[in-house]
Amino acid sequence: MLLSGGLDSATTLAIARADGFRCHALSFDYGQRHRLELDAARRVAQALGAAEHRVLPMPVGELGHSALTDRSIPVPESTGSGIPATYVPARNTVLLGCALGYAEVIGAGDIYLGVNAIDYSGYPDCRPEFIAAFEKLANLATKAAVEGRPMRIHAPLIELNKAEIIRRGIALGVDFALTLSCYQPDDSGRACGRCDSCRLRRAGFEQAGVADPTRYR
Amino acid sequence: MLLSGGLDSATTLAIARADGFRCHALSFDYGQRHRLELDAARRVAQALGAAEHRVLPMPVGELGHSALTDRSIPVPESTGSGIPATYVPARNTVLLGCALGYAEVIGAGDIYLGVNAIDYSGYPDCRPEFIAAFEKLANLATKAAVEGRPMRIHAPLIELNKAEIIRRGIALGVDFALTLSCYQPDDSGRACGRCDSCRLRRAGFEQAGVADPTRYR
Repeated sequence: MLLSGGLDSATTLAIARADGFRCHALSFDYGQRHRLELDAARRVAQALGAAEHRVLPMPVGELGHSALTDRSIPVPESTGSGIPATYVPARNTVLLGCALGYAEVIGAGDIYLGVNAIDYSGYPDCRPEFIAAFEKLANLATKAAVEGRPMRIHAPLIELNKAEIIRRGIALGVDFALTLSCYQPDDSGRACGRCDSCRLRRAGFEQAGVADPTRYR
Repeated sequence: MLLSGGLDSATTLAIARADGFRCHALSFDYGQRHRLELDAARRVAQALGAAEHRVLPMPVGELGHSALTDRSIPVPESTGSGIPATYVPARNTVLLGCALGYAEVIGAGDIYLGVNAIDYSGYPDCRPEFIAAFEKLANLATKAAVEGRPMRIHAPLIELNKAEIIRRGIALGVDFALTLSCYQPDDSGRACGRCDSCRLRRAGFEQAGVADPTRYR
């Protein structure tokens, strides 16, 4: 499973555990503005009982052209229409490709990821049709597939809104205080409260009627 | 375009140039046994007039489980049946994913790669149906696709045998002395002459009726 350290992937890990899986979590160091995200991923993996957590370098960040990886592009502080400046080119294709390789090495037949088509409908590689196309590709790409062992891609949050994700996570015992969603936290990991990701998260807790455990600066 | 420094990708670069493209070449440092392959890629990119050549780190090698990236697995010295030990899990999915991100950043609509379904029919991610599935994915994955600019994946060697690739390359002025195909060259870049890749290459030159410029140890 892909684990970013944010609210969505923490809930996805809890769902995969509830589905009965032994979970191997994969995080990526793709030249993020904040390594604090990787610290959050480590805490979440441990708290939710992942069997293993690995961090791989991810090269796409080096190609630039996203507010998440290129410091010269400002992080937007209001949700606009269209594809956000925080979009990283082909990110989910590369991340899922790495997860596919990892799955093949460990003999796994199920890949979970926390993409969501509701809140971030502007990201082309978070849409259900993208996930379906990747599953088709995965079933042509690997030795396992050639030998008849299918690969399933699970995106259990894809049709949920943020409040529904939060309720689902709380029902499964996720401690959201361990997670970090902010695109520009300060050095101690406190959230800005103003970027797209903070706004969606804060509104989600409000809508879910749940106290927001996020540390804001 | 994906450029490994071998015979196939050198010919592919020459074809892309002949097709009229300004070519941006991408190589990967995926923990290969030999960095000499990257030196060969640099020579080939320059000789064939690539506009740019970039080397990105590629994490899949770190997952192990291939004779090309894990020193504990011997490189096979005879072509067997089935999927070779030199198969790297999900490699082409990740490489094409990175190429897709790069294409998006520079505004390219065409990706070339030198995969071949004839000689390496054991690699699942070299088959025409894999390439077709990746093209479908690419046209769902990116901002460019959402905005109506299609992405085409070109695999011009996919149905050619090694002798045909060599003849095609020579007709386009490729200097194969610059390329390196061996899986286990010595420190000065001389080929072993015994691994699968050397055998196929040597037989290709013989069958094409062309002098083999490879330096063997």
